[in-house]
Amino acid sequence: MNAIEIIKKKRDNQKLTTDEIQFLIKSYTKGEIPDYQFSAFLMATYFNGMSVDETAALTNAMLYSGTVINLDTISGAKVDKHSTGGVGDKTSLILAPIVAAAGVNVPMISGRGLGHTGGTLDKLEAITGFRTDLNLTRYKNVIKKCGAVLVGQTKNIVPADKLMYALRDVTATIESIPLITGSIMSKKLAEGIDGLVLDIKTGSGAFMKELKDAKVLAKSLINTAKAFDKKVIGIITDMNQPLGNNIGNWLEVVESVEALQGKDIPDLMTVTHKLSGAMIYLGGKATSINEGVEISKEMIKNGKAFDKFIEIVKLQKGDTSLLTDLSKYPKSKYSEKIIATKTGYLKEVDNYEIGMSALQLGAGRLTKDDIIEPKAGIIFNPKIGERVKKGDVIAELFTDKKRELDSVKMRVEKALRFSSRKVEKPKLIKTILR
Amino acid sequence: MNAIEIIKKKRDNQKLTTDEIQFLIKSYTKGEIPDYQFSAFLMATYFNGMSVDETAALTNAMLYSGTVINLDTISGAKVDKHSTGGVGDKTSLILAPIVAAAGVNVPMISGRGLGHTGGTLDKLEAITGFRTDLNLTRYKNVIKKCGAVLVGQTKNIVPADKLMYALRDVTATIESIPLITGSIMSKKLAEGIDGLVLDIKTGSGAFMKELKDAKVLAKSLINTAKAFDKKVIGIITDMNQPLGNNIGNWLEVVESVEALQGKDIPDLMTVTHKLSGAMIYLGGKATSINEGVEISKEMIKNGKAFDKFIEIVKLQKGDTSLLTDLSKYPKSKYSEKIIATKTGYLKEVDNYEIGMSALQLGAGRLTKDDIIEPKAGIIFNPKIGERVKKGDVIAELFTDKKRELDSVKMRVEKALRFSSRKVEKPKLIKTILR
Repeated sequence: MNAIEIIKKKRDNQKLTTDEIQFLIKSYTKGEIPDYQFSAFLMATYFNGMSVDETAALTNAMLYSGTVINLDTISGAKVDKHSTGGVGDKTSLILAPIVAAAGVNVPMISGRGLGHTGGTLDKLEAITGFRTDLNLTRYKNVIKKCGAVLVGQTKNIVPADKLMYALRDVTATIESIPLITGSIMSKKLAEGIDGLVLDIKTGSGAFMKELKDAKVLAKSLINTAKAFDKKVIGIITDMNQPLGNNIGNWLEVVESVEALQGKDIPDLMTVTHKLSGAMIYLGGKATSINEGVEISKEMIKNGKAFDKFIEIVKLQKGDTSLLTDLSKYPKSKYSEKIIATKTGYLKEVDNYEIGMSALQLGAGRLTKDDIIEPKAGIIFNPKIGERVKKGDVIAELFTDKKRELDSVKMRVEKALRFSSRKVEKPKLIKTILR
Repeated sequence: MNAIEIIKKKRDNQKLTTDEIQFLIKSYTKGEIPDYQFSAFLMATYFNGMSVDETAALTNAMLYSGTVINLDTISGAKVDKHSTGGVGDKTSLILAPIVAAAGVNVPMISGRGLGHTGGTLDKLEAITGFRTDLNLTRYKNVIKKCGAVLVGQTKNIVPADKLMYALRDVTATIESIPLITGSIMSKKLAEGIDGLVLDIKTGSGAFMKELKDAKVLAKSLINTAKAFDKKVIGIITDMNQPLGNNIGNWLEVVESVEALQGKDIPDLMTVTHKLSGAMIYLGGKATSINEGVEISKEMIKNGKAFDKFIEIVKLQKGDTSLLTDLSKYPKSKYSEKIIATKTGYLKEVDNYEIGMSALQLGAGRLTKDDIIEPKAGIIFNPKIGERVKKGDVIAELFTDKKRELDSVKMRVEKALRFSSRKVEKPKLIKTILR
């Protein structure tokens, strides 16, 4: 078995065996196959894709490149959620405590934001003191104690993915369904879960702009989860505008806390409850997703979800006083309102541009080494289909970088399309796949 | 302009600009773009190909990565031939003196054999003392003196190709029409030619097994030559069996000398005269290919071609006494005849296997660093369509490696298919393209 023959097979659209995929990933991870051969393999895979079996073999090879966590000593179901990323997507912060409060363990390993999309780790770390770098023992202890844990990936978890992602990033091979699937699923399977709910975003602020592409990715992820005997539900949700109103790390913590305290944020909570409902169902605490949604809503109403959030933050060394008194948090040095200059219905949002605007204000990273300003971001008010009146506040910008304000203001304004006629609201939950 | 964007464009099947291709090749040659990005680009090019303009830009960028020889100080037309390689293909040794004798300069830079195909340099170097490593001044002097020169590539000629070929070889990206075109044409254009005759081989012993693929490559090469205002003719010829009877470096010199001395070797001389005829025509010494063919035949008959060959060999320091008395050359330690065990018509030859058999006897290289034994090879007698009688000598093997004899004998026997019914002879000249 040698790398050239395997590259050639993939190039010629022949099915690779499990052994060939195992050999390739193992050898690459050990440094025995050079980057230039692996990148040719990645590009051939970009073009010819992979079958369900090949994708499962890829995921398996990546998974066993590092530590696979075993949570058998923790009683009860373990269910996680994965989102493909979006703008203002803070559902993890809300649903983890909801689902844990409903009696299902949530062992969640998240990532950081990159480009226009935010990352759960960055949002959590906006809470002063919050530790996302727990070792395996503490990871297990936190779940045992409160039923949920929210951490970052350690270097022992799927090292193959770190190497592969870095190479894909510089060889234009990110956008490949089997490679995305292997990357997502190997990391999720390494957590020691029984079930997984997938939030596949689609729209202008999502990785998958088109619904049909989102469906293809969802199917690939679902098939792979099933190959590992995991319970799985895929929910395709709208990402044509920010989810909720707040974009930016601390601003999203604020909105999450408000949601956990019962504030009705219709789009955000529709999506969150559907996801948490599916998790509660997969965890065996409801007989259907809908019953799960009802339980999820109840966890907000009875205050248990908020209490659980405080408990998690405390166990992970975050300053909970900031959450019980949100006003204590330091403010951005500069803020500016964007005011509507005429009346009309919001028709379209270039949500990628909204995400990039928040990044420009300091809320995100262009490259892995950029430093985030947790206070920075945007409160974005209107929703597609709503009537905006002249003089209404469309958005408010927060930043420490005064020089960015003017250009971001223009950028946000340019990202919006208004119509004089009524516009239909986009469907939030596009479809559910299993 | 950056490498990732260019890779992405090619991946997405968008046309690259001349500047983008120039940037990529220049940066890669300078070591400013890493192998792993360039190999991703190569694989994307393998899948999406290149337009005529892109291929010309690629060829141009490769060409100007090194020295481009100017032969303007040498009077008369300069015409070369390039073959895509085959088994027993010694036409260069015969046609270079023919064409030079007819008054057209032949500045020929050739390569070495690799795998099942032989290389002109290896054949020439079988002549004791023959120097193929001339510097630019001696290269020009030899052409000036005798109208032909047969040398190897110096490291200043198209350095981009050396880097690119080495990377293509280990990333399964050899078989790409635009990459093959860039590699061939940049090297030929660097010679300082006015015209080029292309011998595109097709069949079991050729790089292009199928006629339709050979035609695609021929068109790409022709279009690129035209983009550089060069006269060009593409001739697609049969490579379903060895050309002539001798395979192996010295054995092919012997057959070339015999041909130059007037021996009729029908298949070899049909192809050779068509190629030399086309070269004489492109060089302006005939008004048609057919007239060129007549002149070519005349150069053999009147002895001028053989005299010219001796002149070239002398100028390049080869021992001409070996050519005037072929029996002086040392013999292989071992030889063995393969005898027909029954009577029948030769129907099919796996010519790749014949080439690999010669390699196994010592006549070729599996890797660039293998050492060739010039005496080793095969005399292969029957031609497809001929009737072979029980007891006839099918082939004779020559080698210094006794241990290889048995397995090569079986290999050659396995490479042949006989039929009890009459079989048609393959057409030697498939088509001529301009």
